Amino acid sequence: MSNHRNVLLEFSISPLDKGVSLSPYVARSLEIIDKSGLEYKLNPMGTVLEGSWDEVIKVVTDCFNRMKEDCDRITAYIKVDYRKEKTNRLKTKIQAVEKHLGKELKK
Amino acid sequence: MSNHRNVLLEFSISPLDKGVSLSPYVARSLEIIDKSGLEYKLNPMGTVLEGSWDEVIKVVTDCFNRMKEDCDRITAYIKVDYRKEKTNRLKTKIQAVEKHLGKELKK
Amino acid sequence: MSNHRNVLLEFSISPLDKGVSLSPYVARSLEIIDKSGLEYKLNPMGTVLEGSWDEVIKVVTDCFNRMKEDCDRITAYIKVDYRKEKTNRLKTKIQAVEKHLGKELKK
Amino acid sequence: MSNHRNVLLEFSISPLDKGVSLSPYVARSLEIIDKSGLEYKLNPMGTVLEGSWDEVIKVVTDCFNRMKEDCDRITAYIKVDYRKEKTNRLKTKIQAVEKHLGKELKK
Repeated sequence: MSNHRNVLLEFSISPLDKGVSLSPYVARSLEIIDKSGLEYKLNPMGTVLEGSWDEVIKVVTDCFNRMKEDCDRITAYIKVDYRKEKTNRLKTKIQAVEKHLGKELKK
Repeated sequence: MSNHRNVLLEFSISPLDKGVSLSPYVARSLEIIDKSGLEYKLNPMGTVLEGSWDEVIKVVTDCFNRMKEDCDRITAYIKVDYRKEKTNRLKTKIQAVEKHLGKELKK
Repeated sequence: MSNHRNVLLEFSISPLDKGVSLSPYVARSLEIIDKSGLEYKLNPMGTVLEGSWDEVIKVVTDCFNRMKEDCDRITAYIKVDYRKEKTNRLKTKIQAVEKHLGKELKK
Repeated sequence: MSNHRNVLLEFSISPLDKGVSLSPYVARSLEIIDKSGLEYKLNPMGTVLEGSWDEVIKVVTDCFNRMKEDCDRITAYIKVDYRKEKTNRLKTKIQAVEKHLGKELKK
């Protein structure tokens, strides 16, 4: 299968010219993410997407293009973890850590 | 109060000389984090800590020193978000986004 | 002009299953970057590209696809700084800092 | 020797409440870095420090504390590469890549 969803990508994207309250801008990105059809998990510092490289990069690009419409300076931080033979890692990565520790962690 | 817990710090730390299965090493860090007494949230790409600068940096330093004991090459990624007048943001940052969208998100 | 080169993107991409000596893998990425025609600057922790969003993302995608051919686990870290009205920032960002300090810095 | 300078740390730190022109704030950090006595290299997206863990973390902490004096929201991004037996990597990492390619790169 050419379109393995074996990429986890965490990202955050923010305007630098809109002051300190960024939740309206984060909300617009989350709307795009939520409608993308990809699995994702929001955390207090970013969103983790699961998909193929092309799928996850497309979502980030869509969020960037939306923000460009009315923001003059934008920063984005992206972290990628690809594992050839693994999928469904949005769930299984945390489970593997908990299994090693023999207890549940806060998540 | 000089010790405001107004810093969110997300980090991940991994050995580069131990192959592809890193969950034993992640588990050791999570043990240190879980015992630190700080609020935290684990996600599939890292852990978000909440505390003062000195508190959260101490936890990262403890994880690094533990990993140095038996790992020859280590990489770490750290992202900090400080907001002077806000605490309890581990919870409230996501809530603010959901409020803007008027719906619950996957987290 | 639709293709403004107003994005700076710094990235590093590494295999996790090839041990501690990564310079052969970094060299392959640099070959792709050097042939891309984009302006870039290599530093000890990554490479900074200058171009449009689509141009810089294409180079990162090419490096990822090359690495996927023989690496089973890959991590990448990407940082983006977009500024609507500015180009040639690969040079001018550092100059602006030096001008503020009134002296040359190590670079 | 307990104080091996075997850590490379790249970081950038910025206020989010001061608009788009950040070079005055970057300049203040560079002044602290330049006076620290550690080897460093400034690039268009951050500064790479070379030192022991405690040395490089102290410089980042000093920059954060300076910025806290008059900034209400601050973001920082930090990337660490530790290698047990290697020092002087601020220079040698790039040289190793150039040696593999058999040519000089832009830096």
